[in-house]
Amino acid sequence: MKPGDAVGKPAGERRPLRIALLGCGTVGSQVVRLLREQARDLEARVGAPLELAGVAVRRIDRRRDVEIDPALLTTDAMGLVTRDDVDIVVEVIGGIEPARTLILAAMERGKSIVTANKALLAEDGATIHGAARRHGVDLYFEASVGGAIPLLRPLRESLAGDHVHRVLGIVNGTTNYILDKMDSTGASFTDALEEAQALGYAEADPTADVEGFDAAAKAAILAGIAFHTRVTAADVHREGITEITAADVASAAAMGYVIKLLAICARSEDGRSVGVRVHPAMIPRSHPLAGVREAYNAVFVEAESAGRLMFYGAGAGGPQTASAVLGDIVAVARNRLAGTRGPDESTYADLPVHPIGETVTRYHVALDVADKPGVLARVAEIFAKHDVSIQTVRQEGHGDDAQLVIVTHHAKDAALSATVESLRELDIVRAVASVMRVEGEDER
Amino acid sequence: MKPGDAVGKPAGERRPLRIALLGCGTVGSQVVRLLREQARDLEARVGAPLELAGVAVRRIDRRRDVEIDPALLTTDAMGLVTRDDVDIVVEVIGGIEPARTLILAAMERGKSIVTANKALLAEDGATIHGAARRHGVDLYFEASVGGAIPLLRPLRESLAGDHVHRVLGIVNGTTNYILDKMDSTGASFTDALEEAQALGYAEADPTADVEGFDAAAKAAILAGIAFHTRVTAADVHREGITEITAADVASAAAMGYVIKLLAICARSEDGRSVGVRVHPAMIPRSHPLAGVREAYNAVFVEAESAGRLMFYGAGAGGPQTASAVLGDIVAVARNRLAGTRGPDESTYADLPVHPIGETVTRYHVALDVADKPGVLARVAEIFAKHDVSIQTVRQEGHGDDAQLVIVTHHAKDAALSATVESLRELDIVRAVASVMRVEGEDER
Repeated sequence: MKPGDAVGKPAGERRPLRIALLGCGTVGSQVVRLLREQARDLEARVGAPLELAGVAVRRIDRRRDVEIDPALLTTDAMGLVTRDDVDIVVEVIGGIEPARTLILAAMERGKSIVTANKALLAEDGATIHGAARRHGVDLYFEASVGGAIPLLRPLRESLAGDHVHRVLGIVNGTTNYILDKMDSTGASFTDALEEAQALGYAEADPTADVEGFDAAAKAAILAGIAFHTRVTAADVHREGITEITAADVASAAAMGYVIKLLAICARSEDGRSVGVRVHPAMIPRSHPLAGVREAYNAVFVEAESAGRLMFYGAGAGGPQTASAVLGDIVAVARNRLAGTRGPDESTYADLPVHPIGETVTRYHVALDVADKPGVLARVAEIFAKHDVSIQTVRQEGHGDDAQLVIVTHHAKDAALSATVESLRELDIVRAVASVMRVEGEDER
Repeated sequence: MKPGDAVGKPAGERRPLRIALLGCGTVGSQVVRLLREQARDLEARVGAPLELAGVAVRRIDRRRDVEIDPALLTTDAMGLVTRDDVDIVVEVIGGIEPARTLILAAMERGKSIVTANKALLAEDGATIHGAARRHGVDLYFEASVGGAIPLLRPLRESLAGDHVHRVLGIVNGTTNYILDKMDSTGASFTDALEEAQALGYAEADPTADVEGFDAAAKAAILAGIAFHTRVTAADVHREGITEITAADVASAAAMGYVIKLLAICARSEDGRSVGVRVHPAMIPRSHPLAGVREAYNAVFVEAESAGRLMFYGAGAGGPQTASAVLGDIVAVARNRLAGTRGPDESTYADLPVHPIGETVTRYHVALDVADKPGVLARVAEIFAKHDVSIQTVRQEGHGDDAQLVIVTHHAKDAALSATVESLRELDIVRAVASVMRVEGEDER
């Protein structure tokens, strides 16, 4: 169809907008179900019927969560996305290839794209966004971050007249489930991971989640939109949660903290650069993010005029992610009917992404130390030498169990790292028991 | 300008989009400030400069929070909105007239409208939306509900492919401030109101807030969007908080509840009608809305596929509301450049709004009773007669202080009201000490 050729006709006379679906797993099968069950509502909201043109799958005969007319199934994804009767391509395969090649081929033929593919957008957003602009097609990807939670549209559109300082949140449900279990039951990382796998919250190979790759891709996407700057996954400082021990969790709990895997996108103080990082951090138990349980996600946005906003909801799951996909389908369908497009990627600010060492943060450091006079003085000297100011220090235990627990004031991450390195070399420090960043105290 | 005539030209060559601002109070002055301070960012995001064409005020010589070139000020609002060089009219006067007349006149001349006017949209949305459609202009009103919180855009666009069951939230900051103070300090309603007035959270005439008119207008707007149905303020069952006593708050607290003024928009169980109501209600202290302090707002949305979403932030305030206004300005400006429009009002579902009596809810009832055998039996009989099932009953105090505290299961509001009426007539009931709806226990 030519964009706009249905405008003005009564809904009943408009030819359907036809959708090619790439992938029919957890999310894809829910997209099929919703397109079917909500068909009337969708038609009323779009102004024309939405019709499934075909579903590209790897294996035709696999058992699926939803019944699909066999005539719609195909293993020829490229053939499907380039068909003339397809208006909108919905990509829920995930991963870089073949998703990228298929999306680019579809755009070249003028199809609007709806995708949930955070990995692709975070790794090669330049190519994908560039192609969308060049071919004048829509590229919507609300489902790529925060599952069902409307996040990208509010950031991109509702806050388009504001100045975002920081985006801070829990954007990976698997790791939040694991850390929540560790916190609430005292389980080890391994046990909590196994439980998450048994319940379907974690995959057989959990690397993407527990090593922070998934959260880092989402952080890159959030930072790009929030700061009008292109940010890739490679720009994101990333640490996973595999080394968090039950002892770390218990010790945090004893001090009134909870450990969460956070994605933090923040402008530097002078506003001239941005930092994007994903790592476990201690947050006060009174912080709203501390109350985000199980596999839920929540994201804080701090903007100059709007102040602090929070968005909370299910960060994953078939129906939840499909809800976000459907919202995007309605948007691109309306745009096609109106002969228009949604806003392009906005990267005009083009701010440099500074390395983690430049980030200003706070540390919680637990040191196993010799229990003798002068220990604190020597430890404090190391902090002072690196210009890191100590907020609180507490000695716990005696003799062989003596531990110094130190919480610092804000300092550059590089200075904090260097401090910890120096501490490791100190003869009176038997071991650096734990080092963790502390977040969320300033905005309580 | 003709819509679209700037498309394709480099940003620098595009003629500015010119904005007429109606009202320069708390919100308006912040809009002026942001248009000035964010000028470069706004130009980059819109694709053309935004320029203030004029500001209509009641009195030219009033002291304002922001400096404005006197040449821009005018008392002739009608003259301003009908000027040929105005593209976008931003209305932050509030109230029905002259706002309505000015908006209609502006639309007739093809101007895009951004408004924060909940009262007008809730009272006469049909006229305003109808005119926008007829004249083919944009009508954006994110700032009318929830201040800075992106609510309407997510409901209208992100959830366009989902089926919303319920919207439940705190949408009035003044009453939340008052109830929070009553809860945290034991203050009376009058004292808490005075404090809110002293701090600028409540107006000299607080009627619109404390009687629930403001929340009811917002509930009407939320329900309309959530259910694709026209809902007016008159459809909303409204009860304010003026009769909440310190004793009510203390008694709720003793039972683990907190009293909040809630706006609740919900489909009936069979989905064939909707109920929209604003009233104080008891919610469990463990409910996320219970933690919404001071003048903050928070709204839960429960949708078929997305599940439960929560949006939290500042519900009022000059800069906060101005942030929402600016977001809308950017959207309508982009639309003008692209020669397109945002989605029209969607009322296709056209569901009837059922009266409060049809609403299914729970009651907490405290009765001052005679302390003698058989009292509970007679009270229980009254509930049974009206087909209202009792969940818990507890006797507190003895002799003259004897009180029965009853919490019901879900029942129709009409049956619950009738039960309370019958209880009042019972000789052994000395007084109905308090009656309050209980919400938020099912979704814990």
